[in-house]
Amino acid sequence: MITKTKLTVRYAETDQMGIVHHSNYPVWYEAGRTDFIKAMGRSYSQIEAEGVLFPLLELHCKYIQAAKYEDVVIIETTLTKLTMVKAEFSYRVYRERDGVLLNTGSTVHGMVTKELRPVNMKKEKPEIYTMLEKVLEI
Amino acid sequence: MITKTKLTVRYAETDQMGIVHHSNYPVWYEAGRTDFIKAMGRSYSQIEAEGVLFPLLELHCKYIQAAKYEDVVIIETTLTKLTMVKAEFSYRVYRERDGVLLNTGSTVHGMVTKELRPVNMKKEKPEIYTMLEKVLEI
Amino acid sequence: MITKTKLTVRYAETDQMGIVHHSNYPVWYEAGRTDFIKAMGRSYSQIEAEGVLFPLLELHCKYIQAAKYEDVVIIETTLTKLTMVKAEFSYRVYRERDGVLLNTGSTVHGMVTKELRPVNMKKEKPEIYTMLEKVLEI
Amino acid sequence: MITKTKLTVRYAETDQMGIVHHSNYPVWYEAGRTDFIKAMGRSYSQIEAEGVLFPLLELHCKYIQAAKYEDVVIIETTLTKLTMVKAEFSYRVYRERDGVLLNTGSTVHGMVTKELRPVNMKKEKPEIYTMLEKVLEI
Repeated sequence: MITKTKLTVRYAETDQMGIVHHSNYPVWYEAGRTDFIKAMGRSYSQIEAEGVLFPLLELHCKYIQAAKYEDVVIIETTLTKLTMVKAEFSYRVYRERDGVLLNTGSTVHGMVTKELRPVNMKKEKPEIYTMLEKVLEI
Repeated sequence: MITKTKLTVRYAETDQMGIVHHSNYPVWYEAGRTDFIKAMGRSYSQIEAEGVLFPLLELHCKYIQAAKYEDVVIIETTLTKLTMVKAEFSYRVYRERDGVLLNTGSTVHGMVTKELRPVNMKKEKPEIYTMLEKVLEI
Repeated sequence: MITKTKLTVRYAETDQMGIVHHSNYPVWYEAGRTDFIKAMGRSYSQIEAEGVLFPLLELHCKYIQAAKYEDVVIIETTLTKLTMVKAEFSYRVYRERDGVLLNTGSTVHGMVTKELRPVNMKKEKPEIYTMLEKVLEI
Repeated sequence: MITKTKLTVRYAETDQMGIVHHSNYPVWYEAGRTDFIKAMGRSYSQIEAEGVLFPLLELHCKYIQAAKYEDVVIIETTLTKLTMVKAEFSYRVYRERDGVLLNTGSTVHGMVTKELRPVNMKKEKPEIYTMLEKVLEI
């Protein structure tokens, strides 16, 4: 499963270099992840309401080309790794107008309770685990 | 002219109160303003390229109800005042699901060159001034 | 009581106009408020832990002069109004180097529980109310 | 050379998980980098004024422990790699109160002109290159 999230670059996301500030890409990845999880069949809001959180353990970004104000960008999201306690999502960000690849990245997430205690998803939340397993990129 | 801009609340926009942090509303207003100006016939990117900037002089927000993660919100934008050197935009933000009004606000903008020198729009940029005049809310 | 909070402008806070994006001032006000409340004798973290939140009802900003990357700015914070259910803080932001006033503003806050139910501070949290009363600007 | 930058966690930097949102760490790294470059003898503002920019090519973060609102954090910054066209900075973020390590990361930067054309620093800006060389961690 691959989901596509479309965003228009905000003025507030630019910096004095005249391009999108690099700290916005993880925020865009998150918008992509929100859509991906929703497309899986259960929104991340619902998963949180069931007491499971996916905080970041790692973040990796490669900046290839700059995005600019008012550019329409597409974030492609996939689930690229899954263990009983961790999940990795990967992202490709490109400009809609001409398909130019701007950025690629990945995020590794733990799975924890609201008190930040690790959850063995396969055992404690088998239903969510099965959903994730089905959409894992092979 | 009223434009409507649709956004999905990002996780990064929430704070530990569990609601959207108040500093995001001016950013959403700006997304609304971007769409409004584009609908006027010339994008703000083009206006900047012609050497005119609209920096903020004033910002006013009223917070009525909280927005939450994954809420779809609509920003309605109108141009409510126009003089030769200033423009005021007004905004209404509501939740798409049930139409509940979340926030209202306004921004007052100067019109300046890249060197931040005030521009008399009517005289120096009559074409842009006329565009603004046509979409002014009466 | 007036508190002074010193911040160095971050690159991420600039936009393509080459100045600090206007949405950062409410974040700086909040840093000022954090210091003000702490100076009052009880940190906002502690107040939240006691179950009282101060969400924004209103925000007003006047932008006088632009701040730039690496500028050191001072935020002066005062408590300018207090009722049993609301508080207003006011702010002056100036550049440390030359004392030039960059921005003034105010925020009006409700006082609520974690479930966002209004709290009559004078009755339900007299100790915190008294602390606020003592530092109110007259 | 190691520089230490002290910051107090802002409320706006938290998310609904009750911890600092992961997208703030690259912003903190940047604050660390600003101090590091300044300590080198020439501020990044000055380097930009001379026509050289250091945009990001890569970003890597490891999240070890969560930072919370009002925590005082220290960002330690070092220059860990230098070639004629690239530089890598590394960061350690820890809580001042108890020294607990919260986050480590690195950023790889290109060196370019304002038009985003790569600059061979050693040839075109030998003075800045030499400054960087002197503070390179070995």
